[in-house]
Amino acid sequence: MSRFVRRVPDGDDRERLICADCGHVAYENPKIVVGSVVAEDDTVLLCRRAIEPRPGFWTLPAGFLEMGETVKEGARREAWEEARARIALDGVLAVYSIARIGQVQVIFRARFDEPGFEAGPESLEVRRFAWDEIPWDEIAFPSVRWALKAWRNGAAGGAVALNPPEDRRGVRPLPGGAAS
Amino acid sequence: MSRFVRRVPDGDDRERLICADCGHVAYENPKIVVGSVVAEDDTVLLCRRAIEPRPGFWTLPAGFLEMGETVKEGARREAWEEARARIALDGVLAVYSIARIGQVQVIFRARFDEPGFEAGPESLEVRRFAWDEIPWDEIAFPSVRWALKAWRNGAAGGAVALNPPEDRRGVRPLPGGAAS
Repeated sequence: MSRFVRRVPDGDDRERLICADCGHVAYENPKIVVGSVVAEDDTVLLCRRAIEPRPGFWTLPAGFLEMGETVKEGARREAWEEARARIALDGVLAVYSIARIGQVQVIFRARFDEPGFEAGPESLEVRRFAWDEIPWDEIAFPSVRWALKAWRNGAAGGAVALNPPEDRRGVRPLPGGAAS
Repeated sequence: MSRFVRRVPDGDDRERLICADCGHVAYENPKIVVGSVVAEDDTVLLCRRAIEPRPGFWTLPAGFLEMGETVKEGARREAWEEARARIALDGVLAVYSIARIGQVQVIFRARFDEPGFEAGPESLEVRRFAWDEIPWDEIAFPSVRWALKAWRNGAAGGAVALNPPEDRRGVRPLPGGAAS
């Protein structure tokens, strides 16, 4: 078994995990989630999660980007895996940073490219919700709420959404300077 | 030393690196690059690289997102590290996928928040270029060209740029279906 220690590599400015035997630096990187708000006739597609975390709660078709994929390919794959939906992407709706857990989410505006959908292996149930039917108390993650609201507010197009003001967290200052 | 083997974990659908001793799955994930087109008076800020890859070539202030950062924090940190520039971000300009090397780039529109800039430790030189002065033959990476052109074409705002048509690569089909 390799032993990993935490220290600052030469030429770096923060601690990394380093193998005590061979010196290999195991960088820990944020992960990319890709997903989509799939809309039709003023409804949106949600999936009730069959798996941890938050089983039983509703989410967008979304998941981790795989090596070798573009963000568009990943978003389309996730819609297929979780909702058996063939979708077409209409552009980037939002880029959210969930810094606490090292995650960046790229969420697309999308529509059905072919009719039909059904629960994939990671979903208990998949259905379309009109805006007034969305089960806000049973949404799996805050960023799902953000994305749905960004879609609702900006369905006509416009700038990409970033973390909303309701995402209260500390802003970290730059080295030697004020945050802005 | 741990021995890693490639096989498909239970419940997964692709090969992963798995420790033959303990069964730990070492997922390989795409990495996130954050950067910015810093504009002022119709000029843009470029950095001549002091380091590999592509030393001596010009790039945007950009680099890998760190754990615990938002994409905005990362873009501002990189502008400080590479160009000693304090910048303010005006929104997402582009999201590029460099699938071949497992990279997603989130590029912001930005401006100077304070006057002044100079080469940081990873840059040989930093300067502002008017559009007609940009050294197109000495640009470090294709995505730097894409971002500069997206900035030029869309400076008035509008949708986020994705990989341009000039990025010719195969589109991978979804399982059991046609690509679109």
